[in-house]
Amino acid sequence: MSIQKPSLPKGTRDFGPLQMARRNFILDTIKDTFKLFGFQQLETPSMENLSTLTGKYGDEGDQLLFKILNSGNYLKDVEATDLEKGTAHVLPKVSEKGLRYDLTVPFARYVVMNRNEITFPFKRFQIQPVWRADRPQKGRYREFYQCDADVVGTDSLLCEVEILLMIKRVFAQLGISDYSVKVNNRKILTGLSEVIGEQGREGELCVAIDKLDKIGWEKVQEELAQRNFSADAVKKLEPIIGVNGSNEEKLAFLKSFLSTSEVGLQGVQELEEVTRLLTIYGESQEHLDVDVVLARGLSYYTGAIFEVKVNNVSIGSVSGGGRYDNLTGVFGLDGVSGVGFSFGVDRIYDVMDELGLFPQENLDQTKVLICHFDQAGFEYGLKVLQLLREAGIRSELFPDVTKFKKQLTYADKKNVPYVLVLGDDELVNQTATIKHMASGKQETVALGALIEQILE
Amino acid sequence: MSIQKPSLPKGTRDFGPLQMARRNFILDTIKDTFKLFGFQQLETPSMENLSTLTGKYGDEGDQLLFKILNSGNYLKDVEATDLEKGTAHVLPKVSEKGLRYDLTVPFARYVVMNRNEITFPFKRFQIQPVWRADRPQKGRYREFYQCDADVVGTDSLLCEVEILLMIKRVFAQLGISDYSVKVNNRKILTGLSEVIGEQGREGELCVAIDKLDKIGWEKVQEELAQRNFSADAVKKLEPIIGVNGSNEEKLAFLKSFLSTSEVGLQGVQELEEVTRLLTIYGESQEHLDVDVVLARGLSYYTGAIFEVKVNNVSIGSVSGGGRYDNLTGVFGLDGVSGVGFSFGVDRIYDVMDELGLFPQENLDQTKVLICHFDQAGFEYGLKVLQLLREAGIRSELFPDVTKFKKQLTYADKKNVPYVLVLGDDELVNQTATIKHMASGKQETVALGALIEQILE
Repeated sequence: MSIQKPSLPKGTRDFGPLQMARRNFILDTIKDTFKLFGFQQLETPSMENLSTLTGKYGDEGDQLLFKILNSGNYLKDVEATDLEKGTAHVLPKVSEKGLRYDLTVPFARYVVMNRNEITFPFKRFQIQPVWRADRPQKGRYREFYQCDADVVGTDSLLCEVEILLMIKRVFAQLGISDYSVKVNNRKILTGLSEVIGEQGREGELCVAIDKLDKIGWEKVQEELAQRNFSADAVKKLEPIIGVNGSNEEKLAFLKSFLSTSEVGLQGVQELEEVTRLLTIYGESQEHLDVDVVLARGLSYYTGAIFEVKVNNVSIGSVSGGGRYDNLTGVFGLDGVSGVGFSFGVDRIYDVMDELGLFPQENLDQTKVLICHFDQAGFEYGLKVLQLLREAGIRSELFPDVTKFKKQLTYADKKNVPYVLVLGDDELVNQTATIKHMASGKQETVALGALIEQILE
Repeated sequence: MSIQKPSLPKGTRDFGPLQMARRNFILDTIKDTFKLFGFQQLETPSMENLSTLTGKYGDEGDQLLFKILNSGNYLKDVEATDLEKGTAHVLPKVSEKGLRYDLTVPFARYVVMNRNEITFPFKRFQIQPVWRADRPQKGRYREFYQCDADVVGTDSLLCEVEILLMIKRVFAQLGISDYSVKVNNRKILTGLSEVIGEQGREGELCVAIDKLDKIGWEKVQEELAQRNFSADAVKKLEPIIGVNGSNEEKLAFLKSFLSTSEVGLQGVQELEEVTRLLTIYGESQEHLDVDVVLARGLSYYTGAIFEVKVNNVSIGSVSGGGRYDNLTGVFGLDGVSGVGFSFGVDRIYDVMDELGLFPQENLDQTKVLICHFDQAGFEYGLKVLQLLREAGIRSELFPDVTKFKKQLTYADKKNVPYVLVLGDDELVNQTATIKHMASGKQETVALGALIEQILE
């Protein structure tokens, strides 16, 4: 066998110890919050039948699915004449499975297959990698984690409130303080298109006004004109574009602006109810920002729409979601409505990195390294190790009897905060010298006082 | 689009809430132990280049790799004449990536690619799914988790001791008490083949004696004869087969039996040193069983060999590992030796299920469901919910104003231990009635006393 220089497939990453500790810090925070709110974890297989995946993500999505070659003689159904007919023709003959593209379709499949065992309302969360054969670029990977929470089987607006509460709790615990949770409601968008006289065209309307941030009102007007929105309609829209003030002020404005649209008023009322319930819970409206032009993959959503943006960073939205009507219709089960959202773990990681928010102390890592000068010190260290671990302190004994400097370097590189130095004196007196790596200070204590000293 | 009945690919599984809670109970226990011992987590991509994977698992392993079809026009290099040449010929033209088959090869690749950044000795653990295109059968899946810990870059026998300590800690915490950790050493096996006059044939010797448990000594002798082991050699082996007694007795016997083999004696000495260090640490030899015929994938191991068997269950070994000399040689980096082992999470799950060892209380789940009779009760419940969550108690408010019975059924099915009943009286008096679901007992307490009551 020839020796190869190994490499990673493009668009994929290893996560080494430091990255894993930081990722786990984020994921554990999210998981704790999900569980505190009564969500239960689900995991589905990485591979799904292509019949489950295909046609759910549009033509482009189908192209981006990773397909698994059938096992064994995968060519048995392929004739020479098939080759001329192209990849789409050959595909069903050589592949019947693909890798998970998101967590929503597998969730829908799970609900349909287990509908008789599931207790509704079903609050599930799911944290697993997904795969997309996208062109790799900065911040876009072919394998990345999604982190979804959904409630299906209830129309209660409590679900919307809880999504806001969970977002606020997670961000508070992660130390991200300067962010906005933008909220809107599909019904408001529907109402908008009604009152400007372009009923039923909220899809196109939203595609255009979604770009407001990027291209400005001038260009949005041009685009609407190109899409054959009447000049009158565009003019009528103008007051909406400039709306500002507190959420109460915006909602009051919308109530008047949408006064002739029943569905529009319903959307406003739903948003009002969400803020009212939030207040009863005892939570402020801080970070909450009613954004009447927020659209996000409008085709899915039928009620609330959410998006979280962290301010003053180069990264776009880090979380989003909304209410939908028909999760499982494509698998033959109608009437399963719900509301869900997703934390973008990779993006939250990048935000925290950019803002320097990761805790400085070593996450998840060894707290104490025991160092020694000879075999006797090593064996004494073994006893001390037992004491430390018995007290639940993450600790290591340097495994080789070797130069002290090498042991210190190990502690330093692994970012271990405390080193115990065990020399002849310590052994004779049954003590340990604690060296605090950051300050360089050291102190000799009796074994009986060691745990207390380290834990304080 | 036609409506499909969705299904799972064969050999794959969904893990619903109860299974996930139980799996997490096992995995969290293992992770805590790994971290307590100073191991750091690594995650590698699900996909590896086929050049990284192929040739590492033997011919059969290559067959069992799941290959990913290239994206885009995957047929562009395939001519009609290629088809006749068969799947092995066509494969490199249509696929360049495969799914991870184990965690060892990706770990070796990681070490080679990051050798200049890694702090040695490197203690890493890795818990991720692997995929094998095996024929699915009871207890054998095409996607399953592996859970590995390895230390590379040191020859210290402390590593072997720590593996034993970690196994004992994990099993104690999981409540598995009747099990054996079988230990052996490759050098003892080498020594055995020397002293019976069949030097260098320990491979064949082990394949035969590995079957002792299943087929008995009579048949093992036949197999050895068929493999052209001399009658004299087989006769010389006999005392080893019947060896029993305490570990000390077995080691004493081996010392005498292997007295003419330098390498054999070294193996015995290593085992003795491991038990000596274990004693210094303060750990008993309970569960430890020196097993001179333990071989396990002998080709890898150069020193210690481990295997864990739970007694009185239908499942075979649940954990195993050993010391190896050359992890990364295949990728061009020599001299990386280490010792590692793996917990079989699926098998541990099955063992705990069979023995009824999963905690009866609901793992990881909602502790309190708040129930109500009308909108006023629902809104009062929202305040109470905030109190509970603020205290870190996993809790839910039933989201819909609906029949009380429906709410109780939800609590019952979700195995929620406490229900709070909020009626008019509770609202007026600012109290809550706590119903303990298992006993049916209920009690009305002031809101101020609620948290204490639930937490006790």
